[in-house]
Amino acid sequence: MPADIGSRHDHIIDAARTCFARRGFHQATMQDICAAAGLSPGSLYRYFRGKDDLIAALVERDRAESLALIDTVRETDDILTALGDLADASLASFDDPQECALSIEIAAEAVRNPRVGALVRRYTDGVADALTAVISAAQRREQIDPALDPRALARTLLALIDGLIVQKSLDPDLDIRAYGVFYRALLAKLPRRDDASATDR
Amino acid sequence: MPADIGSRHDHIIDAARTCFARRGFHQATMQDICAAAGLSPGSLYRYFRGKDDLIAALVERDRAESLALIDTVRETDDILTALGDLADASLASFDDPQECALSIEIAAEAVRNPRVGALVRRYTDGVADALTAVISAAQRREQIDPALDPRALARTLLALIDGLIVQKSLDPDLDIRAYGVFYRALLAKLPRRDDASATDR
Repeated sequence: MPADIGSRHDHIIDAARTCFARRGFHQATMQDICAAAGLSPGSLYRYFRGKDDLIAALVERDRAESLALIDTVRETDDILTALGDLADASLASFDDPQECALSIEIAAEAVRNPRVGALVRRYTDGVADALTAVISAAQRREQIDPALDPRALARTLLALIDGLIVQKSLDPDLDIRAYGVFYRALLAKLPRRDDASATDR
Repeated sequence: MPADIGSRHDHIIDAARTCFARRGFHQATMQDICAAAGLSPGSLYRYFRGKDDLIAALVERDRAESLALIDTVRETDDILTALGDLADASLASFDDPQECALSIEIAAEAVRNPRVGALVRRYTDGVADALTAVISAAQRREQIDPALDPRALARTLLALIDGLIVQKSLDPDLDIRAYGVFYRALLAKLPRRDDASATDR
């Protein structure tokens, strides 16, 4: 699409993000989103037919951004360091309480609304797949223990971030950036083959 | 309170859990909860004035149950094994999709509703405090690296479970019980003093 339409599109998604984060997906109205975007309802409806379309576009944009970030990790030599840095950047992005609120709002809507559920699952599965490929590459280079299930490790790393977002949403003063050390520990310090018995129970 | 009142109380909370999990906190009505509990509105309102009171009672009961479970861990000799077993039991309890949905519903409501937010924070802080005390005890016995921040480790362990619940809610087929191995790895395989430099960056 032409750049101006793309930028109008992004501008509306930004407005929807703010409204959903501030009032919740159900409480936010299309009028709120028009006001936040500075557009008439007629203009907005030319791009999006309703809140479901907006949440779809928002999740799809996040998905593309996350996949692009993971792609940059795959291209580095030291995948372990790059994954740790990616976790730091991801945790830092949740310093914004609205980002935490939005993340939980979308998870809650995904449970109730099959269309949103399918979109969020596509997002999560896509990110988990990309991370699995990166972990597998690190395993081939013996940067991560090859005996580990790369998909389960990928999902564990994502779960740690999701769970810290839940805690941060309850306590905005929680410094979740300090938790990058545990993320790194999970990647780097898993049992090697020669001492796997310690957790093999 | 007398046993019959306590049991009526618990019975209503069970009915509210089912309704909140099935329809969401906002969509579920007091009538739904009366029907699920098999009570007239008059009987129900004798115990709870509204949905906020029900969610408060529900979170408070979960808090008491979680603290009792963590207490049993503190009394064992092998805290590491007991913590791993507790993680397994906790993950297994989320095999029920309604438990996942309820957990996310409560987190979402906590973001929007200050009273629910305060209750859930009291729950999370209480469980984190209890887990911190257990980890500190394990550190005194050198079962867990004494150099680690016990509170941060406690919050990380809780975050891992919360995050797996988010993923399980999207994909009911996900076998999150298989993830106990990473929970154990995080506890048992954190950097010892002699190789702390590996994650000390």
